[in-house]
Amino acid sequence: MTKLRACIIAVGSEMLTPFRVDTNSLVVTERLNAIGYDVRLKMVVGDDVEELAQAFASALTWADLIVVMGGLGPTDDDVTRAAIAQVLEVPLDLHEHVVDRIRSRFARRGMTMPEINRRQAMAPRGATLIDNPNGTAPGLWIERGSTAIVLLPGPPRELTPMLDTIIRDRLEGPSGGSRLFRRVLRITGRAESDVDTDAQPVYGRWVSAPIPITTTILAVMGQIELHLTATAQNRADADAALDLAAEELGKVLGAAVYSADGRNLEAVVGDLLRGKHFTIATAESCTGGLLTSRLTDVPGSSAYVERSFVCYSNRSKVELLGITEALLTEHGAVSEPVAHAMAVGARTRAATDVGIGITGIAGPDGGTPDKPVGTVAIAVDVRGESRVRTFRFIGGREQVKFQASQAALNTLRLMLEDNDQRGTR
Amino acid sequence: MTKLRACIIAVGSEMLTPFRVDTNSLVVTERLNAIGYDVRLKMVVGDDVEELAQAFASALTWADLIVVMGGLGPTDDDVTRAAIAQVLEVPLDLHEHVVDRIRSRFARRGMTMPEINRRQAMAPRGATLIDNPNGTAPGLWIERGSTAIVLLPGPPRELTPMLDTIIRDRLEGPSGGSRLFRRVLRITGRAESDVDTDAQPVYGRWVSAPIPITTTILAVMGQIELHLTATAQNRADADAALDLAAEELGKVLGAAVYSADGRNLEAVVGDLLRGKHFTIATAESCTGGLLTSRLTDVPGSSAYVERSFVCYSNRSKVELLGITEALLTEHGAVSEPVAHAMAVGARTRAATDVGIGITGIAGPDGGTPDKPVGTVAIAVDVRGESRVRTFRFIGGREQVKFQASQAALNTLRLMLEDNDQRGTR
Repeated sequence: MTKLRACIIAVGSEMLTPFRVDTNSLVVTERLNAIGYDVRLKMVVGDDVEELAQAFASALTWADLIVVMGGLGPTDDDVTRAAIAQVLEVPLDLHEHVVDRIRSRFARRGMTMPEINRRQAMAPRGATLIDNPNGTAPGLWIERGSTAIVLLPGPPRELTPMLDTIIRDRLEGPSGGSRLFRRVLRITGRAESDVDTDAQPVYGRWVSAPIPITTTILAVMGQIELHLTATAQNRADADAALDLAAEELGKVLGAAVYSADGRNLEAVVGDLLRGKHFTIATAESCTGGLLTSRLTDVPGSSAYVERSFVCYSNRSKVELLGITEALLTEHGAVSEPVAHAMAVGARTRAATDVGIGITGIAGPDGGTPDKPVGTVAIAVDVRGESRVRTFRFIGGREQVKFQASQAALNTLRLMLEDNDQRGTR
Repeated sequence: MTKLRACIIAVGSEMLTPFRVDTNSLVVTERLNAIGYDVRLKMVVGDDVEELAQAFASALTWADLIVVMGGLGPTDDDVTRAAIAQVLEVPLDLHEHVVDRIRSRFARRGMTMPEINRRQAMAPRGATLIDNPNGTAPGLWIERGSTAIVLLPGPPRELTPMLDTIIRDRLEGPSGGSRLFRRVLRITGRAESDVDTDAQPVYGRWVSAPIPITTTILAVMGQIELHLTATAQNRADADAALDLAAEELGKVLGAAVYSADGRNLEAVVGDLLRGKHFTIATAESCTGGLLTSRLTDVPGSSAYVERSFVCYSNRSKVELLGITEALLTEHGAVSEPVAHAMAVGARTRAATDVGIGITGIAGPDGGTPDKPVGTVAIAVDVRGESRVRTFRFIGGREQVKFQASQAALNTLRLMLEDNDQRGTR
C-alpha cells in the first residue's frame, strides 16, 4: 500500500515575522490525514512571485497533493495565482461569470465592487474554480500529471469549509481507503535515550507490519511522548493494532507509561484520587503553588483538592505545618526530613488522605556545593505510608519548578497504582 | 544595502501532525532580524534523512544563512547530522572530547550515559561544535561557500542561549548597514480594539519618520503587546527613536502600559514590592496557586513572597483565614465580602504588608445565572487599604485562572504605583 504524500504551502509575509505562525496547516493536516494523505513537508513563503514559484516547483517534483493557502486576495500582494501559472506555464484567464458573482456579493452588502477585485476571477488555464460562500476569492483545483493542486483562501472561515467541499467532491477515496490513526503514549521519570533503548526493538518491528505503525519519540520538559501512527483501512483495524502496540510498549516500559489515552499527568492523578474517594493537601516551598495549580487545572478537581500551604518562608513552615525550628536547623529547609514533615503536616492539618511536601532550590541563587541549584526533596504521604526522595533537576527556575511538580505527581501516581495492585491481589 | 537571506528549517515529524506547530522559528526570526537577516522561507520536515537532505539542498542554492532546528537527539529518529553530511558530501566524525562532556553531564546527575548518546558527538567533517550548557546535544556551525549553516537543538531552553552565543561570536555585524531593533510595550486591563483606537493615530505617523518604526499589535490572553520595530544604522539611534515612541504611546495609553522594557507583570510587581520592602501573602481559591506560582517564577521572589493559602474547600477558608460560616452563607463563597475577608485574613495571619484574596468560578461547572462561569471576585489589601472588584472572564478553566491572576497582579501594581505617586508629591 502506498501512502499519498502531501505538501502544504502557506503564503504570507506576516508569517515570516517573529509575531505570527501558520496555524491553518493544522486543520488541513487533520483533514488530509483522515483521507489517507501523509503531510511530508510544510513551507511558509512571503508574498513574492519568484519565491512562491520556486517553492511550488520543488513540491511539484514529488507530492501527490499540494495545498497552497493564502495569496488569493485582490491586491498587489496577492501573488499565488500568478506564481502557479508561471510554474505550470499556462496563461491566466479571466472568468467573467466569477466577476459577476463577486460583484453581486458586494451588491448584497450595498457596496460597489472595486475594480481590483476582478483579479480574483483570474485563474491559470485548466483550473476549476471552487465557489467561496464565505468570501470573494474562489478556490482553485488543478491537476497536473498525477499531482492534485488545491489553492485555498487564507482566512480560516473561508478555508475550512472550502477544503471540506473539495475533499468530499474530489479527494475522498483516491487513496483506496487507507487513513492515518494516531495514539500518544506519555512517559515520565526516565531519560529519552533510556526509553528509546527499550522501545526501539519493539516499535522497529511495526514499520513493516500488515497495519504499519510508525513511531516518533518526543522529549518535552519532564516528559517523553511516543507518537504512534497507524495506516489502516478503518478505525477498528487501526485501534486493534494500536491497542496491541501500546500493550507491547507497556510491557517493556512498565509503570513509566502513565497514559495512552491523551490524559496529562494531573488528570491521571486526579482520576486515581477520585476513584478512591481520596482528598489531597500539599505543602509547597520551591514550587510556589505550581503543583496545586496543575492539580486544579483539571475540571472537577474540587472533589479532591482540599487545600495547599505554600510555605515560602521558614516562618510559615513553622506556623502552618508544625515543622520545628530544631528540624530546620539540624537538616536545613531543603532536606528529606523537612519534606517528610511538610507532607505529614499538610495531611494531618487538612485532615486529608494524601499529603505532599516539596522543598528545594529553584535558583538561580541559593545553591551550595552540597545542595546545588536544582536540588529538591519531595515527600508523598498516603494515609501514613510515605515515600521520600531527593532529586537533582537541571534547568532554569521555571524548569526546576515544573520538573519538581512532575516528580511529585508521578510519585503519587505510582503509590496509588501500587495500592490498586495490592488491592486486587 | 543588501539584505541577507535566511532560511529556517524545523525538523520533527510531530510538527507535521495536526497537533503541533513550530514556534521556535519565531524567536530565531526575531534574533536574525535584529542583525539584518531577512527570513525568506520556513520549512518543516519530518525525521527522514532523504526529505531533510532535499529541503536543505534546495535552501543551499540561495540562502546566505540556513538555520536547522531539531533532530540532534541521540535516537534513530534524529537524522539532522546525517542529512547535512550527506548533502555536503562529507563523512561524520566522532569527537571524543564531546563524548566525555556528555558523559560527565550524565554523571553530575548520578546517571550513566547510555551508549546511544555517543551519536550526539558525531559531526560532519569541517563543522565547529558549539557547547550546549543546557543539554547534551552540541550545536554545529558550518560554512559552505558563502552560506553559513547553523544546527541547533530543538528544545527552546537549549536553542535560544546557543543561538545568542552564535550570533554574538559568529554572525553579528556582517550586514554592515541597517538593522532591525524592537521594543515591546505590554498592556493589560484593556481591550485590543480600544488600545488600537488610541494608539493608531500615534504610531501611524512613525512609518515615514527618518528612523522609521513599524508597529504590530498582538493580543494574547489577558494581555496586549505593541511590538515596535525601528530600522536604524545603530542601537543608539534606534533607542532614541524607540524611547520617544514609547513615551508618546505612554501618554495616550496611560497606566495601562505596565512595561516597556521586557519585564512581565509578575516581575514588575516584584520590583515594586522589593522597592518598598513589602512582603505579600495570598489566599487563592479558584486560581489554585497559580498567582503565587507566577510570583515565585521571578528570581529572588523569596525576598517578598511570605506564604500562600490555597483554600479550595470552604472548610479551609474557615480554618486558615478565619472566614466565618455566616459570611459564606450570607454572600456565597464567590463574593466580594469573602474575597475581601480572604485578603485581610491572609495579610494579618501571615503578618505581611500585602494580602490578596481570589474566589471565583473557573468552570466548566458551578456557574449560576447570577454568577456564571468566569465570575471572579478579587480583593487586594495593602496595609489596611483595600480594592475589591468582581470580574467576568471569558474562556476555559485555564484561561479564567490566568486572567484572574493577571487582574490580581495588575490591581496590586496600580495600588503600589499610586502609592509611589502620592509619596513623591
